[in-house]
Amino acid sequence: MSKEFKHISTREIEEMEKRYRVNFINSLPGFKSLNLIGTVNRKGDTNLSIVSTVTHFGSNPPLIGYISRPESPERHTLSNILETGSYTINQVSESFFKEAHQTSARYPAEISEFESVGLTPVWRKGLPIPFVAESAVTMHLSLVEKVDIQSNGTVLTIGQVTDVFLDHTHLMDDGNIDLEVARIVTGAGLDGYFLPQKLARLSYAKTDRPISEI
Amino acid sequence: MSKEFKHISTREIEEMEKRYRVNFINSLPGFKSLNLIGTVNRKGDTNLSIVSTVTHFGSNPPLIGYISRPESPERHTLSNILETGSYTINQVSESFFKEAHQTSARYPAEISEFESVGLTPVWRKGLPIPFVAESAVTMHLSLVEKVDIQSNGTVLTIGQVTDVFLDHTHLMDDGNIDLEVARIVTGAGLDGYFLPQKLARLSYAKTDRPISEI
Repeated sequence: MSKEFKHISTREIEEMEKRYRVNFINSLPGFKSLNLIGTVNRKGDTNLSIVSTVTHFGSNPPLIGYISRPESPERHTLSNILETGSYTINQVSESFFKEAHQTSARYPAEISEFESVGLTPVWRKGLPIPFVAESAVTMHLSLVEKVDIQSNGTVLTIGQVTDVFLDHTHLMDDGNIDLEVARIVTGAGLDGYFLPQKLARLSYAKTDRPISEI
Repeated sequence: MSKEFKHISTREIEEMEKRYRVNFINSLPGFKSLNLIGTVNRKGDTNLSIVSTVTHFGSNPPLIGYISRPESPERHTLSNILETGSYTINQVSESFFKEAHQTSARYPAEISEFESVGLTPVWRKGLPIPFVAESAVTMHLSLVEKVDIQSNGTVLTIGQVTDVFLDHTHLMDDGNIDLEVARIVTGAGLDGYFLPQKLARLSYAKTDRPISEI
């Protein structure tokens, strides 16, 4: 198999046309989580931004991180989180992935992406940040750590999940959320949207016995 | 819709049984990338570990990060990267996802996961770290930054992609890699494996015109 493989070197990556390189490098991690981050600023302007870098950092305490570039469309998201100390994360599903994608346009701070793209803000349990009503798996987080990445000036924002709101029919007996039944989507590159279909769930791996489907 | 939503509070998360909580919190980011990280230690022992936190940090320079817990099965991966300064990332596809899952068992350092799980190490272009021969999208990275996360003691490892080796038929004209044709898989929770099917690719979002499928 490997004899037909194409080799792309550091120099070839450097010499790529910018948009080509962005597509290429964004394909290298594989499929990505797709979430909408909801925030408000001190004036009460709401903001909503699609993010493909939401990542699990730990379960106890429950910590989730995401990456942003200070100059990117999600810049209002980061400044709002730093102002208020909290935000919501809302998983993107098949029924509104086009509206979610549209939040990546560069709207001014005073324009709410909720209204512009046609998604519905909803406030829950007295929490100060809007959730996306259309999302089946949503959570509120408190900022716990901001890390400035030295290599390229990006920012890693880590929050602790304080409250989860989800369609109760998607919560399985073992604590897993059934993302397939919730029709949650995954992303590839910057603009590809995909619906995953289950291959298998596999048993906890041990060195002394083969894994099995569960 | 939201009236039927289940609310799960901080206290309820804290009181969850450990395995239930791990499943639940690992479901919150949505679908995850699945990659095998290949390393060697100074003695030449090879190591292979499945990781679901590989994330894009930047395209120029091309930076990719992943998260590890020091005490986790991927502990040899981190110590090897710190010893040698380099590693490979290999995307997981449908044809070997069970073997990839098996690398999460706690093998001793002197046992190679390649041999134990039945995957093939391959060395390319004189690079010192083995790639996974079965993987259609593979890359070599040099360590550029190690970040100790204060909140929970995890470690963020960031590397620069120096070389990419991939099946040339999967490279599209615009620089995207066709992950669907490569049959790359995505993960949910700790043990769910899924094959994504394309919904659409969407045009670059602008504030003054609707998006379209491309």
